[in-house]
Amino acid sequence: MLNISSPTLLLDEVKCRRNISKMCKKAKQASVCFRPHFKTHQSIEIGSWFRAEGVHKITVSSLRMAHYFAEASWGNILIAFPVNPLETDGYEKLAEKCRLSTIVDQVESIRILAEQTASPIDCYLDIDTGYKRTGITWNDHETIGSYLKLIEKSKNLRFAGFYCHPGNTYNHIDEKDKLQIYAYTLDALAKLKNQYADFEPEILAGDTPGCSLLDTFGIVDTITPGNFVFYDLFQTSIGSCKESEIAVALACPVVGVYPHRNQMVIHGGSTHFSKERINVGNQNAFGKLVKLENDFWRSMEVDLYLTSISQEHGIIDLGEHNSGNFKVGDIVSILPVHSCLTTNLMRQYLTLDGRLIQRFNWFSNSC
Amino acid sequence: MLNISSPTLLLDEVKCRRNISKMCKKAKQASVCFRPHFKTHQSIEIGSWFRAEGVHKITVSSLRMAHYFAEASWGNILIAFPVNPLETDGYEKLAEKCRLSTIVDQVESIRILAEQTASPIDCYLDIDTGYKRTGITWNDHETIGSYLKLIEKSKNLRFAGFYCHPGNTYNHIDEKDKLQIYAYTLDALAKLKNQYADFEPEILAGDTPGCSLLDTFGIVDTITPGNFVFYDLFQTSIGSCKESEIAVALACPVVGVYPHRNQMVIHGGSTHFSKERINVGNQNAFGKLVKLENDFWRSMEVDLYLTSISQEHGIIDLGEHNSGNFKVGDIVSILPVHSCLTTNLMRQYLTLDGRLIQRFNWFSNSC
Repeated sequence: MLNISSPTLLLDEVKCRRNISKMCKKAKQASVCFRPHFKTHQSIEIGSWFRAEGVHKITVSSLRMAHYFAEASWGNILIAFPVNPLETDGYEKLAEKCRLSTIVDQVESIRILAEQTASPIDCYLDIDTGYKRTGITWNDHETIGSYLKLIEKSKNLRFAGFYCHPGNTYNHIDEKDKLQIYAYTLDALAKLKNQYADFEPEILAGDTPGCSLLDTFGIVDTITPGNFVFYDLFQTSIGSCKESEIAVALACPVVGVYPHRNQMVIHGGSTHFSKERINVGNQNAFGKLVKLENDFWRSMEVDLYLTSISQEHGIIDLGEHNSGNFKVGDIVSILPVHSCLTTNLMRQYLTLDGRLIQRFNWFSNSC
Repeated sequence: MLNISSPTLLLDEVKCRRNISKMCKKAKQASVCFRPHFKTHQSIEIGSWFRAEGVHKITVSSLRMAHYFAEASWGNILIAFPVNPLETDGYEKLAEKCRLSTIVDQVESIRILAEQTASPIDCYLDIDTGYKRTGITWNDHETIGSYLKLIEKSKNLRFAGFYCHPGNTYNHIDEKDKLQIYAYTLDALAKLKNQYADFEPEILAGDTPGCSLLDTFGIVDTITPGNFVFYDLFQTSIGSCKESEIAVALACPVVGVYPHRNQMVIHGGSTHFSKERINVGNQNAFGKLVKLENDFWRSMEVDLYLTSISQEHGIIDLGEHNSGNFKVGDIVSILPVHSCLTTNLMRQYLTLDGRLIQRFNWFSNSC
């Protein structure tokens, strides 16, 4: 049995490896390259579980994270975050060490990157098909054309293809709505692939909801999902996974039981879970209880949710007949709503056989 | 000028010291003891700014945080979090080093603490006057009486008084509503003080909204606010402070400008700000832009908000005429919605004269 006395992030290695293996297999069967996003787990050891499945290209969401994985011998890294012109030194250092790709959608960023780096960097044009976060609007050919020229003119930058993160899928529970977004996105990317065929562009796309739902990816060459490595309650709520596939849970001590209001309080708040929430029956849910056995956890007979959190406290609604089942000093395990944020806050993993796994630390891992 | 190229938490030391000094003065004038909560800043150096104002008793929200401050020679520490019976070892070690107080509201916790510690520990009964997070319902005299007996029977525990965090004020913008909550709370605490007068109970209360609003505190002996050290947009939104009193801001690089949709994208997302939000004109706001000058920041002429965030990206709505004022590579400064969570994520402060200030690290500072 694990020895836990304070909030601790648990990792079910079996589930996690199964999620990795399943996505690898899916990519193989669909004949697409698999370049998983490592922003969710941010761990060299968990990265090695991907390597064991034959993965050798990865995606990250910051320059520092790229350096962290480059130091662990990852030789082909895509930074799927817009180039920050203030950090070109870091891009250059990285491009000297590994095959570096990045995404671009701003003329100044391309210009500055070309001026201030010398080593080869593959550039994917970031394409917006409706998410409206970053990216060139997919049919803005004037901009695309001018960027292609700018990249071609530079000594070290190379146009590698088009990248698209259709994150607007996250706003839809309905499968039909999500499929519609993909149909539109794949159609737009197909048009680009066709129109710029002379450049032989590679098409990158893929978010967890899409890659979990689809089995084929049309003209997409490479998929880049990330969250699927752990999944979470949010992904369950929009139909990307089953609850039994969620591979992380937060173990928290019970510090108060309040039978008169059918609630208990745990040490586990927004500094552990984050403030991310889903709606369950018109109530906020910041997490859901599971039952921890020796080397796995399973669903409870009744659904119990973390319904309110402050900095260090979490309140769990017990319903009418459950307050007798919990006591102060118990450890309860809770599935998080957003595993990316919870794991970022908790910074290390405890596997169910008691091994600590470290992850990237923004503050101690510099460029 | 500061040399910033990635998301960086800025601290305006002048504003912060002014907030500290103002609250110290208020406590003095109201003849209450000031035992500030250190959960917001969690920093030895910022703690020393309180010490310079004559503060020598503090409040923290976890056992590990208590150890961190005890190591920095704080000799009188209240852990304002329910006793976790799994960590009594840590309570004992701490009680051997400093004058330790804690709050209790569970019979098992008192029993286990009494059994497993030997050094003196002051216990405040945690009282609930309507917030319904933790605490004994204020008029549940049966429970209060039995806890007092239990504490009296133990060799090392001492009943010190009543503690109340009326956090329900956070749900109200209207001053009248908040004043009503205080009136009720102060009345309840007065009744307790009177009923248990033989024990000479010390009455502890105080949250930032209340301590900012009120000038006198009735029968309260000691106030314990914390957030006021930095304040934030949430506190501004409920009337606790002026925007000009907020002492932290997040400096973020602009990585994309999108004039066709009047938006820009920064490197700064939920892993920097947290997902805490307020509502401004029917829109979510995760932060608000200020203009950084050499050694201070000031309000912008127009109100610009961070209206959407994902893990690393933030989207700022620029309105119709402002996209020309920002360019890729700029650094923008943004007031956070909840400074406790933002500072917890950012883990260190950069003062406006370029000094790095460290804070407590849950993972490297053990008990």
